[in-house]
Amino acid sequence: MTVSETNPVYEDLMKDYDSGLTHSGVNGERLARRLHELSFIGYTQVGGVKRPGLSDEEKKAKELVKTWMAEAGLTVSEDGAGNVKGRLAGRDESSRAIASGSHVDSVPNGGNFDGPLGVLSALEVVESWKETGYVPPKPYEVIIFTDEEGSRFNSGLSGSRAMTGALSEEEMDQLRDYNGETLEQVLSKYGSSLQAFKDAKRDVSELELFVEVHIEQGKKLEKADQPVGIVSGIAGPAWLEAEFSGEAGHAGNTPMAGRRDPLVAAAAFISAIPDFPEQVSETAVATVGKLEVSPNGINVIPEKVTLHVDIRDIYEDPRDHLLEMIRKEAEAIADTREIQLNIKQNTKIQPVPIAKDLQANLADSLEKFNISPTYIPSGAGHDAMILGRHIPVAMLFVRSKEGISHNPKEWSSLNDCVTGVHVLKDFIEKAMDQ
Amino acid sequence: MTVSETNPVYEDLMKDYDSGLTHSGVNGERLARRLHELSFIGYTQVGGVKRPGLSDEEKKAKELVKTWMAEAGLTVSEDGAGNVKGRLAGRDESSRAIASGSHVDSVPNGGNFDGPLGVLSALEVVESWKETGYVPPKPYEVIIFTDEEGSRFNSGLSGSRAMTGALSEEEMDQLRDYNGETLEQVLSKYGSSLQAFKDAKRDVSELELFVEVHIEQGKKLEKADQPVGIVSGIAGPAWLEAEFSGEAGHAGNTPMAGRRDPLVAAAAFISAIPDFPEQVSETAVATVGKLEVSPNGINVIPEKVTLHVDIRDIYEDPRDHLLEMIRKEAEAIADTREIQLNIKQNTKIQPVPIAKDLQANLADSLEKFNISPTYIPSGAGHDAMILGRHIPVAMLFVRSKEGISHNPKEWSSLNDCVTGVHVLKDFIEKAMDQ
Repeated sequence: MTVSETNPVYEDLMKDYDSGLTHSGVNGERLARRLHELSFIGYTQVGGVKRPGLSDEEKKAKELVKTWMAEAGLTVSEDGAGNVKGRLAGRDESSRAIASGSHVDSVPNGGNFDGPLGVLSALEVVESWKETGYVPPKPYEVIIFTDEEGSRFNSGLSGSRAMTGALSEEEMDQLRDYNGETLEQVLSKYGSSLQAFKDAKRDVSELELFVEVHIEQGKKLEKADQPVGIVSGIAGPAWLEAEFSGEAGHAGNTPMAGRRDPLVAAAAFISAIPDFPEQVSETAVATVGKLEVSPNGINVIPEKVTLHVDIRDIYEDPRDHLLEMIRKEAEAIADTREIQLNIKQNTKIQPVPIAKDLQANLADSLEKFNISPTYIPSGAGHDAMILGRHIPVAMLFVRSKEGISHNPKEWSSLNDCVTGVHVLKDFIEKAMDQ
Repeated sequence: MTVSETNPVYEDLMKDYDSGLTHSGVNGERLARRLHELSFIGYTQVGGVKRPGLSDEEKKAKELVKTWMAEAGLTVSEDGAGNVKGRLAGRDESSRAIASGSHVDSVPNGGNFDGPLGVLSALEVVESWKETGYVPPKPYEVIIFTDEEGSRFNSGLSGSRAMTGALSEEEMDQLRDYNGETLEQVLSKYGSSLQAFKDAKRDVSELELFVEVHIEQGKKLEKADQPVGIVSGIAGPAWLEAEFSGEAGHAGNTPMAGRRDPLVAAAAFISAIPDFPEQVSETAVATVGKLEVSPNGINVIPEKVTLHVDIRDIYEDPRDHLLEMIRKEAEAIADTREIQLNIKQNTKIQPVPIAKDLQANLADSLEKFNISPTYIPSGAGHDAMILGRHIPVAMLFVRSKEGISHNPKEWSSLNDCVTGVHVLKDFIEKAMDQ
């Protein structure tokens, strides 16, 4: 695979690169080349990538990174969930390791930075150490987690959940991918097995700390005009499923008075939602992304509307308060309009705080590079969120162009990406000495 | 197929039947049995039927009725649009025929009366003549129109429009069914062709009069405590298709401020609609029955919402005024919220008046059976509306339990149905002598 003229990732990254950022063993051109080479795997006609979890494409991307890991001197292994570990021995092998990484799978038409940047940044730290002859006091692990995005099973973070034992037998049984295949069938095609997937559970307390670099997928850094920022917490989503049932009828022959139209009720509910989040917290959000109307005929007053509300905050109390406000609004609207409401909570994941001392250490690293710290709540879940239930985690966000993500137009400049590597390296080296 | 204990249509019809209504060759038990047998075709688990236009189920229902037509002595034929005609020769074959009928397709989870009652009532008139030895002076046609409901192509009355040549080449080209298939593809599977569909156009002025029996799908007869009533006019539907497009984004990482969420905009629009109809007319109605969200993922702010508004009145001016009010509301909401709106009118059908003399003849027939005439505007479109643009039409409504329709709970008592047949028979026999 060579730098291609038809896929401009390398060229676009390099054209405004400040080569002065290539120093201390960190090499921007290498990072650009690797981002570029990964961009061919699962390349879509519209310039994005499609690398679902546990697909041939995800596997191929991991294999490519594994060759780079091995060249950098890491001892490479892969567990039964497909999580890849590249381990660098520390001066004191009895110390707990420090780990960094992310994922290489993507959403169906994703971009080139969400995931790969975190993996390649963690690897670039090793490359820099190799060039400068630095041997870390503690072991260091570069990790690629499997199936973070969830485009395979409608349920993401599979690799990190397998690693921490967060997936119950029941959840594993219920998983069905986009072809209707079970986890067992998918694993078998991938070259693993259900038992090996279960055996991927490791004692993550062997790790002292996990730090993940990720694109921001938002606009805060752009607004603050800063290349990288500090994640202040990872929001946990709570999902409500609300079913509004009314009385179907002929759209032409049912007078307006006396109608019990569940879509009109659901619409009143959806209209009301955007006013609630700011009442509980500055960082809270609530979204109706999925809605189905039944029977969904043009000339039929609907009988039932099912919708899902995604409610998030990085703080648990306001998030739960928002959840209750939204639930009560649905109940009040249904009650007033004589609509039957069936509402249930499908998912409720605890937000993960990032320890203040780790945020302070990141701020200290940022200041070394004259970057004013911007604190950003992560609305999206990340593998760091899963590991954060067991061990200290930190996250560094790299500025996203226009906040666009999960889209071929996703972009971060090479200057910002390389600055992220320098900050990550400094942060890890400090943690190595503590 | 036999009378089944698991599907209680026959039993429920017969249990309060006044067998005194079986006279003059009209047989309530036969009508109940036929309604029952049709109810198995496309039977849904929840007790309704699903017989989309040009589906295997609609075809099977037509085949069953054809066998009854043939047994009753009708000459059966089917045109390239799937319209079935059962013709009874008149004493004077040079006379123009009198026709009656309806349809056997249904909405996605419809009931057992909307359509079939009109077809079976028209056929029951022939059965009565067969039993009494009556030979009509003029030819008589029982017609089953294809795809009246529009659940196949989002555009109903296909059969009657094909028969009257009301479908333009452009409309035929643009039709796409629920699987994205063209009219040509659907017709090919049905066993017809686009050319045969076009050739279904006939000179409907060969018919002197078309009369359709249909359930009321409203509550006026129930309130008036009358079994059947006279349709005073048929409302013409106008359909708006509105596409709201905004900016997709991650539901967790996109702050509430600055979102351009097309579902929130569409919800505000849907909430506003019910207040408009009463501003233009007492009989006007407007309904959003169909709505699709894209990409429809729980954690994705929608990018696009497509919805359909069904707008009706029996008077054209207020209906058009309402159409404009609703279109302007959509534009205003989209404008305020920075949402892109693409709105188009899919269907706009003129309301059809029913001639006063035909209403008077129906009233005369009703009075013979001691029924006080109730005059009802039809909010629903019917095949009679399409034929009514070319020839005189009349319609008779049969009382609907609680006005429920397009729903498995749709119900009319057998007494009311049989009374409808007697009135229809009397009305047709009068027309035969005129």
